[in-house]
Amino acid sequence: MAPGIRIASTRAARATSLLRTVQFTHPPSCPCHSNPGAHGPHHHALPSARSQKRRLATPLDATRQKEYAFEMAASSIRFGPGCTAEVGMDMKNLGAKKVMVVTDGNVSKLGAMTRVIEGLEAEGVNYEIYDGVRVEPKDSSIKEAIDAAKPYQPDAFLAVGGGSVIDTAKLMNLYTCFQEADFLDFVNAPLGLGKPITKPLLPLVAVPTTAGTGSETTGTAIFDLVAKRAKTGIAHRALKPTLGICDPLNTRTMPSAVHASSGLDVLCHSLESWTAIPFNERVPRPTNPINRPAYQGANPISDIFSLQALKSTVEYLPRAVKDPDDFEAQSQMLLAATLAGVGFGNAGVHLCHGMSYPISGQNPGYKHPGYQVENALIPHGVSVAVTAPAVFKFTGASNPERHLAAAEAFGVDISNVKKESAGEILSEALADFLVKLGDQPRGLKQLGFNSGHIDMLVEGTIPQARVLMLAPSLEMQNVEAEREQLRDLFEEALEY
Amino acid sequence: MAPGIRIASTRAARATSLLRTVQFTHPPSCPCHSNPGAHGPHHHALPSARSQKRRLATPLDATRQKEYAFEMAASSIRFGPGCTAEVGMDMKNLGAKKVMVVTDGNVSKLGAMTRVIEGLEAEGVNYEIYDGVRVEPKDSSIKEAIDAAKPYQPDAFLAVGGGSVIDTAKLMNLYTCFQEADFLDFVNAPLGLGKPITKPLLPLVAVPTTAGTGSETTGTAIFDLVAKRAKTGIAHRALKPTLGICDPLNTRTMPSAVHASSGLDVLCHSLESWTAIPFNERVPRPTNPINRPAYQGANPISDIFSLQALKSTVEYLPRAVKDPDDFEAQSQMLLAATLAGVGFGNAGVHLCHGMSYPISGQNPGYKHPGYQVENALIPHGVSVAVTAPAVFKFTGASNPERHLAAAEAFGVDISNVKKESAGEILSEALADFLVKLGDQPRGLKQLGFNSGHIDMLVEGTIPQARVLMLAPSLEMQNVEAEREQLRDLFEEALEY
Repeated sequence: MAPGIRIASTRAARATSLLRTVQFTHPPSCPCHSNPGAHGPHHHALPSARSQKRRLATPLDATRQKEYAFEMAASSIRFGPGCTAEVGMDMKNLGAKKVMVVTDGNVSKLGAMTRVIEGLEAEGVNYEIYDGVRVEPKDSSIKEAIDAAKPYQPDAFLAVGGGSVIDTAKLMNLYTCFQEADFLDFVNAPLGLGKPITKPLLPLVAVPTTAGTGSETTGTAIFDLVAKRAKTGIAHRALKPTLGICDPLNTRTMPSAVHASSGLDVLCHSLESWTAIPFNERVPRPTNPINRPAYQGANPISDIFSLQALKSTVEYLPRAVKDPDDFEAQSQMLLAATLAGVGFGNAGVHLCHGMSYPISGQNPGYKHPGYQVENALIPHGVSVAVTAPAVFKFTGASNPERHLAAAEAFGVDISNVKKESAGEILSEALADFLVKLGDQPRGLKQLGFNSGHIDMLVEGTIPQARVLMLAPSLEMQNVEAEREQLRDLFEEALEY
Repeated sequence: MAPGIRIASTRAARATSLLRTVQFTHPPSCPCHSNPGAHGPHHHALPSARSQKRRLATPLDATRQKEYAFEMAASSIRFGPGCTAEVGMDMKNLGAKKVMVVTDGNVSKLGAMTRVIEGLEAEGVNYEIYDGVRVEPKDSSIKEAIDAAKPYQPDAFLAVGGGSVIDTAKLMNLYTCFQEADFLDFVNAPLGLGKPITKPLLPLVAVPTTAGTGSETTGTAIFDLVAKRAKTGIAHRALKPTLGICDPLNTRTMPSAVHASSGLDVLCHSLESWTAIPFNERVPRPTNPINRPAYQGANPISDIFSLQALKSTVEYLPRAVKDPDDFEAQSQMLLAATLAGVGFGNAGVHLCHGMSYPISGQNPGYKHPGYQVENALIPHGVSVAVTAPAVFKFTGASNPERHLAAAEAFGVDISNVKKESAGEILSEALADFLVKLGDQPRGLKQLGFNSGHIDMLVEGTIPQARVLMLAPSLEMQNVEAEREQLRDLFEEALEY
């Protein structure tokens, strides 16, 4: 916090500084002053407590006003080895009589599914299994799943699987409750209409079998919109599961390579939400709270989750990947994935995720070691982490304190580091972590990309406005400048 | 963690250690080994992941089994100066057409209430105001409030006030939804029947006007059960508000003395939940998840909230008390109160709160400076904090690492401190903090109690089983030993 603001003593000035200062609990610093140009000329236009009320009464202003509040929402979370057995009682307690169990062909053969079915049968709860979820879902695979749910008329959903399963179940729930809606009604703008969800959905219990997406706690569902050749999704608090059952017994079946890539997703969830622009720099302020996005920028509650998840991931992911019998590390990674889910589920992600979608979508033919799949595949976590060293070098100047705190979480001694080096220091720590984790591509080149692919990658990133708007240091007011920055970022990410 | 467990390498032993280790994320240590006798002889009887499943299938065992899972639930929280204005839109978004606004005679005259009513009227939402809430509610005052709600048949509740108002509104909601229920049905056992709440209640939005109870995030409501001369309550996740609207403009009306005592409640919420027994030492394991208490013992998610709230309170409470114009500090205290609410709302409180109820109930005639009330009154926060130096000296040995981490939050340099002194060090840091805060009684004597009152205070504490069961170091299996310990604690708390 700049001295000029700290010492301001008039009532109005103190009220003005309140909003900025409350946000930076940890560490107590304002990211904007270290790089005054980063968020444009409106930085000092934050409304005072007094003028705020007046402006709220003038909704015409809102589209140009910055946000002044944040909202934290998360699913209830149950955590404990063996607690999947309680799911039948949960369904009965929720009053469910016809449960649609959603899974995929792989997970349906695992112990997690056995435990879920035993739980339902022990309580005599009726259920039907849909195991047709596609990994990395497309709008078409989701529509198939919705069509499968409608005739059964379930009164609750139960998702057993990774992020693809849980996300698909969220949308089965949404479109079962809004039967008249067009699929694009709720899809994030600008690709869809981005309508808010105006009534509660059916209960959804999520049982994750990977430690990665955190989807069990969030109101987000991601899929490929094939006609637009873009990764997009639907995001609203009403989508979030009623309860996430996080049972470390269910992630013991993950192969080592899946541990690694899921864990890298957790790493980037925590780093991106921790470094996202502050909620009160986001524009526009919503005119109705139902339109306040779930991805609202960093805020003092998401910060607590994101930083804790980062620390846990740095400590436990290498152990979980190296030793399939290290249940403590695996269990801690499941918890970290959930914590990071609460963090990014309320703050958002930015460049690593925004750039990952064209990377996996435009894969030149890379097959990740340890994944037994027929087609070429860049696992989501790998596509996200591969640009991370370049991304955090780029964003460092927007908030050196936060980037240094993150570097410290990787074990870097930051006591004699200059602020100007914050991005570089974090970038090096990340690269070092990825190399030591093993089996990670050292840049886009090792995935088969070269400079000739960059223009297409940039064009595939531009539509990810929902996450890019949270990226610090990115020039979103000027699409040519933004293109240039993204081009540089992809270039930098070719090799680390 | 004792070396004997860390180096255990067989599958079964590692599975056994998983549960214990996952809990102590922060700091990474197991409190039980530092004081092996603290939790009795069952410490090493934690079920392994494998045997757990078998035991789950044998419910007869459950009453003697320790807990193996924890569940985290909290209201959605919106935070921002001025966001009270959104409440009319919230009610409309929730589909509410007849809102019962619950408040007390004092708050009804404040700006918070004006802003709430403006918000409702701007959206044309019908409402009726009940301003008869009694501060420190009794069962009789709650029954009056319930009787006032029933004829209006509201479809949503809106609480505007401190903990007493929000707690009363929770119970108006409960008994409006369960019209046939007897009042004692849901009251905590053993005073009531402690039945679980089996269906969702009406939407309840809580707008706190004090920074203390955290009631806007919890499923707990506290009151005096006059016939039993005891403070008790109703606690269930289903009671928690749909949304807490935390607007720092609404706490600006708190007088300095109210800031202080509310803030001391926050301090003890965070310290007690941080030092409560671990969730997996609690007995019995519930046979149905609906019976898992909200106050379940310390767990890795509540820990994050509790420690952060403690750090914020130490930093900002003295400023909020000293300078009524320090909006930054006041705002941070509102956030800390909410964070502590999530922490203790899922982990519980113990001795300070258990002992506070007879202290305020058996008040010999103390009037707290700065409170303009006709009758003698020990504010809740004062009655809680007055025993804190004695309590944490007593509990120190149960978990020296956590007590030292708490002392560090008060600014104590713990680098050369012996584990054995952990309780004493924290006790001294607390006493010092209370003295510097100003206007706090330095022990029970200054409230008018003497040794002759102690037996009655002990008898008034014993029925607080729900919180005492979470107290580390307390001999609850043997009521005579427990009485002796409480007697010593009250004796120690006479003066600090």
